[in-house]
Amino acid sequence: MEWLTAEEQAAWRAFLQATYLLEDHLDRQLQRDAGMPHVYYALLSTLSETPGRSMRMTELAERVKITRSRLSHAVSRLEGNGWLRRESCPSDRRGQIAVLTDAGYDKVVETAPGHVQAVRGAIFDRLSAEQTAQLGEIARIIAEGLHGPDGTDVPWLR
Amino acid sequence: MEWLTAEEQAAWRAFLQATYLLEDHLDRQLQRDAGMPHVYYALLSTLSETPGRSMRMTELAERVKITRSRLSHAVSRLEGNGWLRRESCPSDRRGQIAVLTDAGYDKVVETAPGHVQAVRGAIFDRLSAEQTAQLGEIARIIAEGLHGPDGTDVPWLR
Repeated sequence: MEWLTAEEQAAWRAFLQATYLLEDHLDRQLQRDAGMPHVYYALLSTLSETPGRSMRMTELAERVKITRSRLSHAVSRLEGNGWLRRESCPSDRRGQIAVLTDAGYDKVVETAPGHVQAVRGAIFDRLSAEQTAQLGEIARIIAEGLHGPDGTDVPWLR
Repeated sequence: MEWLTAEEQAAWRAFLQATYLLEDHLDRQLQRDAGMPHVYYALLSTLSETPGRSMRMTELAERVKITRSRLSHAVSRLEGNGWLRRESCPSDRRGQIAVLTDAGYDKVVETAPGHVQAVRGAIFDRLSAEQTAQLGEIARIIAEGLHGPDGTDVPWLR
């Protein structure tokens, strides 16, 4: 059992604080400006960039890194707002597809500028180009490691 | 309105994915091994390192970067487990102090090795010393910026 060094401990605390504060900040920005939490916007925004503005539910959960049950709950709420709809999957009777509606697409177009400004103001306006590259590389290393040795203990397969 | 560059976009996606996966991983590890979510452990662990193993509720919320209502909910649950108790603050009748119980301290001592191993395995075993220093610096820059221009729009004052 090896404890964290002082530098690891400090980095870990700062990272946790940054992620808690950032999620709080972006949730508030999106609740205020678009009436939805950050993860809901991530779902709509992901669909808006996909050919056909639609995606299998299982793939959408994987892209946004959330559990199926969390996705299912979010999709029900977003359906209620008229921003997306579920369709059955032609190639797999048990599968479902999430489809962004026109109203959902308009919502993304309307919301994106303010949200990008919030992300930029919180992160990229404050980092050098070198730090942005470092952040991307470090995040990729962490994310890769968390896909599990057998690739099954991941949120979107639960 | 300035959109994110391709490199900023990639860094942002990787960062979001890493934080979602990491929170999921550590929540599961702590639920399985200690019967509590990550943020509850952060509260107990923070108190365990404080002189007197106690802290004003408002200061504890600030340290862990959560809202007062989230803290209050967590503290009620942790009180139910016998891991901490609330006491009134001698210097301020409206203030409350969270005090780690002996059972709570034992719980931290018992939980810490497995949790540190999970954090190390997910992050620090995978990063070079240089990347650890970069992560700390970047996280500090982001966290600082999110304390708000007037220092009031922060979770622990809500």
